[in-house]
Amino acid sequence: MSSGKAVIAQGGGPTAVINQSLVGAVLAAREGQVVRRIYGARHGVRGIVDEAFLDLTQETTDNLEAVAATPCSALGSTRDKPDIAYCREIFRVLAAHDVSTFFYIGGNDSADTVRIVAEEAQKAGRRLDCIHIPKTIDNDLTVTDHTPGFGSAARFVASAFAGVDRDNAALPGVYIGVVMGRHAGFLTAASALGRANAADGPHLIYLPEKVFDPDAFVAAVNKIHNKIGRCVVAVSEGIHDAEGTPIVTRMTREVETDAHGNVQLSGTGALADMLVDLIKTKTNIKRVRGDTFGYLQRSFLGCVSDTDAVEARAVGATAVSFATSGDREGPATGSVVIRRTGDYVVDFSLADLKDIGGKTKVVTPEMIAANGHDVTRAFLDYARPLVGAAPIATAKLRAPDVPKILNV
Amino acid sequence: MSSGKAVIAQGGGPTAVINQSLVGAVLAAREGQVVRRIYGARHGVRGIVDEAFLDLTQETTDNLEAVAATPCSALGSTRDKPDIAYCREIFRVLAAHDVSTFFYIGGNDSADTVRIVAEEAQKAGRRLDCIHIPKTIDNDLTVTDHTPGFGSAARFVASAFAGVDRDNAALPGVYIGVVMGRHAGFLTAASALGRANAADGPHLIYLPEKVFDPDAFVAAVNKIHNKIGRCVVAVSEGIHDAEGTPIVTRMTREVETDAHGNVQLSGTGALADMLVDLIKTKTNIKRVRGDTFGYLQRSFLGCVSDTDAVEARAVGATAVSFATSGDREGPATGSVVIRRTGDYVVDFSLADLKDIGGKTKVVTPEMIAANGHDVTRAFLDYARPLVGAAPIATAKLRAPDVPKILNV
Repeated sequence: MSSGKAVIAQGGGPTAVINQSLVGAVLAAREGQVVRRIYGARHGVRGIVDEAFLDLTQETTDNLEAVAATPCSALGSTRDKPDIAYCREIFRVLAAHDVSTFFYIGGNDSADTVRIVAEEAQKAGRRLDCIHIPKTIDNDLTVTDHTPGFGSAARFVASAFAGVDRDNAALPGVYIGVVMGRHAGFLTAASALGRANAADGPHLIYLPEKVFDPDAFVAAVNKIHNKIGRCVVAVSEGIHDAEGTPIVTRMTREVETDAHGNVQLSGTGALADMLVDLIKTKTNIKRVRGDTFGYLQRSFLGCVSDTDAVEARAVGATAVSFATSGDREGPATGSVVIRRTGDYVVDFSLADLKDIGGKTKVVTPEMIAANGHDVTRAFLDYARPLVGAAPIATAKLRAPDVPKILNV
Repeated sequence: MSSGKAVIAQGGGPTAVINQSLVGAVLAAREGQVVRRIYGARHGVRGIVDEAFLDLTQETTDNLEAVAATPCSALGSTRDKPDIAYCREIFRVLAAHDVSTFFYIGGNDSADTVRIVAEEAQKAGRRLDCIHIPKTIDNDLTVTDHTPGFGSAARFVASAFAGVDRDNAALPGVYIGVVMGRHAGFLTAASALGRANAADGPHLIYLPEKVFDPDAFVAAVNKIHNKIGRCVVAVSEGIHDAEGTPIVTRMTREVETDAHGNVQLSGTGALADMLVDLIKTKTNIKRVRGDTFGYLQRSFLGCVSDTDAVEARAVGATAVSFATSGDREGPATGSVVIRRTGDYVVDFSLADLKDIGGKTKVVTPEMIAANGHDVTRAFLDYARPLVGAAPIATAKLRAPDVPKILNV
């Protein structure tokens, strides 16, 4: 017998539409008959162990809709990656509050947390429906066709490159834009979606799926610059050498690592500056500029893929459906995944948490060009519907040249 | 007697709406009876001396509208700052092509170029209408209330800070965002327009109008972080010490300077990284992140202030009106300026080029808070209508806390 009490939390890096999933779940819960009370935990699992709950049953629908349109985890997030003991503590608090449903919006670490909490509940003989609601700008979750949050971040990256390519055409030189993504290059690959025609940049795209060779990079930039007088490059922050060492650690004096031992890649312009220095040192190109797109990629207000927003809302609402559908014997556990059933139509299903937790998907070989520094039509076809219906399009003047008089 | 032939060019740093001014002028010229042919010069004044002209009379209106919606100088731009000899060469080419009207879309350097070319025409006894069409994201042109290009860049900066402030609230720490603007802090000040309420960031705003004291900066960040557990900072790339030396030059080993001897401030993450290091070194705050917004501020596709787009179009069209109104004896010369006649209504007039060329406007003292690291209501009232009608608004959850059970 369900207590009718649910807890929802948000973990990991924020996205532009993570609150759509939160609001989708809260509204679906309030519409249904099974969940009578839904609590939000502040700052992810940390808020559960701290019993820092908000009663979202008492939010107005108007304010929920305003929150849904606001980027970044409204409940707050955490970088905590719970071990077994931490998960037991989560379960203990949920049990104390007589919670019968647990929703966690997050990436692959969060899926793993949901799995362990579900196992703890099972061991304790307590029914606890545990549903993972997917989000990540990296698009690196397994099983699902793609992940909510990616489409909007991809739209940001494509829009940024569409614009800086026009900037670079106006004031020619080399431009290097560094994009988020430690292991998966989907977001960097999305830079290609801003091209209006084949001559547009980015002219070179470096993904973390390939080993980065600085000498080959310099040669490729120089070749394009010699040919067209300019060159726009998209680089993943996660590019690394053959040993897997991030390129950025080759130059930074002190490198910050997080609780998981990961080198800090975001929140610093070091990689872009290093690549700019490399081009300046090894070529005769004078105007070389680098930008690191940074946190704007996941948080910028007003750059949302409508497709992404709808799907993020849907995975939240669907999670409630999966948790509360009454025709099951045992508790519902799983991760909501998106299946592409048409071009472009999707459906949602519940996947086994073991197939998702802690696992990472990367860009597949058929999406990467043979030269190693571009994407293929397969990637463009895959990603195009995800960035939304509004075109990401630039235009050029087409007028004919005027004959010269003085310099004939 | 006018030849009916006009030349238009775009100079300096691109903006999101600089092509609105180009298209405004071209369409107005084609609608009127005076200009029969309008040429576009590739890459600013450089294209004039190189006789690299496009015949914009032959562009379709549909394509012109598509170009108007595309960020960054469609004709190409230049960083050339013509001296007298260069301006004489410009005049020589314009005369050879029997051009009777010269439009130059640009900032204060471009205004000065227009002034010198007009003087050369006068000396040569040749009628040449010379009109400067204003643009700059820095908003540093004198006489005019504000400059086309600023509103859209300000919208970008405000939207960026609205988002990163929510990101910083979700994953607390210190966040430093570096904004373009060498001498004028208008764009950095626009970061305040993204606040939805008084508690929102940016909590500190550092403009180049004030001397930057690193120790006071560290103390201010620490104070806010101690109070609310987080701190978002907006910093102008142009912050400098009491001697006027840019803060960035204090740490960078090699500093690049341009043709005017200016230190390169954009296209590098050095300042943000330096300020992050400073906070990490001098405080116990663990999570400190910095972003440099870079070229996205002036080129991002899809972040346009509707007010800015309309006004950028209008200054282009109005330039044609001023050049072709038939009730004058001598040639028309001047810079189109915007006067704020209502709240919010504007009118356009023609100002003397001598009052604008080479001059710089900065944020006035009454727009800067007494503490030196925030803006006043006067700035918000001034800037708010410029970023467009669409709200830049975020929302927070308002639900009540749930009583604790275990940790009471």
